[in-house]
Amino acid sequence: MYITAIGRTKFGILNETLPELAYKAMLSALEDSNLSIRDIDAIYVANFCSGPFQNQLHLNSLISSLLPGLMIPIIRIETACASGGSALYQALISLTKFKTIMVIGVEKMSNVDPTKATMNISAAGDKMLDQNEGLTFPASYALIAQQHMLKYGTTLDDLSLVSLKNHENGNLNEFAHFYHKKVDMEMIRNSPVICSPLRLFDCSPISDGAAALIVSRERRSDRDVKIIASALVTDYISPAQRRDLTSFKAVKIATNEAYSQAKINAQDINIAEVHDCFTITELIAMEDLGFCKPGESKNYVREGRTKLDGDIPINTDGGLKADGHPIGASGVGQVYEVVTQLRNEAGERQVKNSEIGLTHNIGGIGGTAVIHIFRRS
Amino acid sequence: MYITAIGRTKFGILNETLPELAYKAMLSALEDSNLSIRDIDAIYVANFCSGPFQNQLHLNSLISSLLPGLMIPIIRIETACASGGSALYQALISLTKFKTIMVIGVEKMSNVDPTKATMNISAAGDKMLDQNEGLTFPASYALIAQQHMLKYGTTLDDLSLVSLKNHENGNLNEFAHFYHKKVDMEMIRNSPVICSPLRLFDCSPISDGAAALIVSRERRSDRDVKIIASALVTDYISPAQRRDLTSFKAVKIATNEAYSQAKINAQDINIAEVHDCFTITELIAMEDLGFCKPGESKNYVREGRTKLDGDIPINTDGGLKADGHPIGASGVGQVYEVVTQLRNEAGERQVKNSEIGLTHNIGGIGGTAVIHIFRRS
Repeated sequence: MYITAIGRTKFGILNETLPELAYKAMLSALEDSNLSIRDIDAIYVANFCSGPFQNQLHLNSLISSLLPGLMIPIIRIETACASGGSALYQALISLTKFKTIMVIGVEKMSNVDPTKATMNISAAGDKMLDQNEGLTFPASYALIAQQHMLKYGTTLDDLSLVSLKNHENGNLNEFAHFYHKKVDMEMIRNSPVICSPLRLFDCSPISDGAAALIVSRERRSDRDVKIIASALVTDYISPAQRRDLTSFKAVKIATNEAYSQAKINAQDINIAEVHDCFTITELIAMEDLGFCKPGESKNYVREGRTKLDGDIPINTDGGLKADGHPIGASGVGQVYEVVTQLRNEAGERQVKNSEIGLTHNIGGIGGTAVIHIFRRS
Repeated sequence: MYITAIGRTKFGILNETLPELAYKAMLSALEDSNLSIRDIDAIYVANFCSGPFQNQLHLNSLISSLLPGLMIPIIRIETACASGGSALYQALISLTKFKTIMVIGVEKMSNVDPTKATMNISAAGDKMLDQNEGLTFPASYALIAQQHMLKYGTTLDDLSLVSLKNHENGNLNEFAHFYHKKVDMEMIRNSPVICSPLRLFDCSPISDGAAALIVSRERRSDRDVKIIASALVTDYISPAQRRDLTSFKAVKIATNEAYSQAKINAQDINIAEVHDCFTITELIAMEDLGFCKPGESKNYVREGRTKLDGDIPINTDGGLKADGHPIGASGVGQVYEVVTQLRNEAGERQVKNSEIGLTHNIGGIGGTAVIHIFRRS
């Protein structure tokens, strides 16, 4: 199974409507391929919150409207912030039936009042246990960060170093929400507290955007990237039900399954896109993925090992923090970056000699975990 | 591929919350099988509007919370009112990877202000072309009914006969929203106009409810029902984009594909569950499915051919009109009824000698069409 083409829009506060964003990303993926839309046998649409945000559901039919006369199977997948990864996971299973499938992730979030946006996003948490108690996602991840600090001595500056690195990478990514935005430690340290210990620069932004992939049962060109693992696991939705907040069990199970499918170890991964919805999430991802031992992610960050020139570069596109977090598109955007890197097409932010890349896409606080591993083909 | 177990809750205005409904339906399906929850390899959750209605998304993780320690792949599917059929369609494709899959459809709608509910449901229509013009679904289907009347001479009483028949069937279905509700032609004729020509009794109700299926790669018992066709097609979302409103092209394409997969003709179908969100939709379904020629559905209804003792009984459980329309669950509920009939377990409403049954589940005004065909195994 191969990723044969990739496409995306810029992420950020954009003028385009949701269907316009979806169309642009699909066109961009087609232009990256030697295929016409008539070669696409089915489409999976990843979207999290166009219901509450736009009162627009039935996106599979909306996509059909953009592709006159095509009349193929199109299905929407939603698993909160992991929708993009889940759509790819599903598409790969469906390659048994269809030869060529498009995966499109899209989200339009910026045209909603920010207070309402935070409430809408909290729909990824349990209504009764979380939402009714005021436990929005910045609040959940603040609890998680507090636990990690308490258990492992992780500091505020460790979180800030994640933010700084991701902004440095995003600064080099022309599609990024924060392209050409210079950020330094002082700005991060002085940014307002959102939910202690998380400050503004620890949080990913509200973004619009879309990204698309074309997956193929057979290899089509030497730019194709092979998918060597695909795993999805679900866990409890609410932090109230978890024993431990410093690690996500679903991620660990999915990761083990993925390494087993790919017949590799964590040490074989050259680059990774991880779900840094908050800076603390990137640290926990590094530990859950086995890049380092529990509690050691802070050392890796302090030593710069996850930077572009480090031994395990993470979020080379800027991650959700700086590339942006148009929720349904984010998981697809991660794959866009890994494929770009493995194709050696990442320009200024190219990591040398990358053979194997991984994407880590989660929903809520790891209630859904999706891991994919890719190899240059 | 087989439906090895079925379960459901009552449909109607219920006290249960969304997770309670989902749990009850899943338990009911497990009780119908000789399986434990540990035998389930993956779950697909069908839901349309828990985002706008309940501010509850990420239902795949919510379901995981109901099944402690299971930690399997769970994915939510949304294709408007066809979500249930689409989840089954997807599950059948995924049987290549998983041996046993549960499909659960769930919707909680009654705890929302009815005015807001109609607006929320209009999310299945195009935001710009339909919603902004005030084209809610009763309005869209009123236009469709007007066209059908103009073209074919269908009358108000023809619509009412569909409603009457479905209420007669629902009256015999203990799970139905309108179980034990006696309805006659006078009540239907005198019911208030919702959107001319559609009156209250032409419209399906706002219901809560859940239904579940267990699908299996292999036959497990002599109560299993074989799935002999599964087809899904998408079309334009808005009536503004359609050439003809008296027939749904996606339904016709999916139906042809399904008959071809099953190697049968329309005449071979013994019973059918069709998507009667409005009475006119049942008439159009009969024509699109090839049960009769375009414009002839009115004759079938006048002659009582779709009643329990007719030659092609339709909506033996009362259909969306009388069984109820908890949107994400409706497509799954249709399969529950066909399986019940093919197993000869439908009690008072049992249709004799049923070998082959069909389900017709659509989203919006046929922007999504899902057809399944089942055979006694």
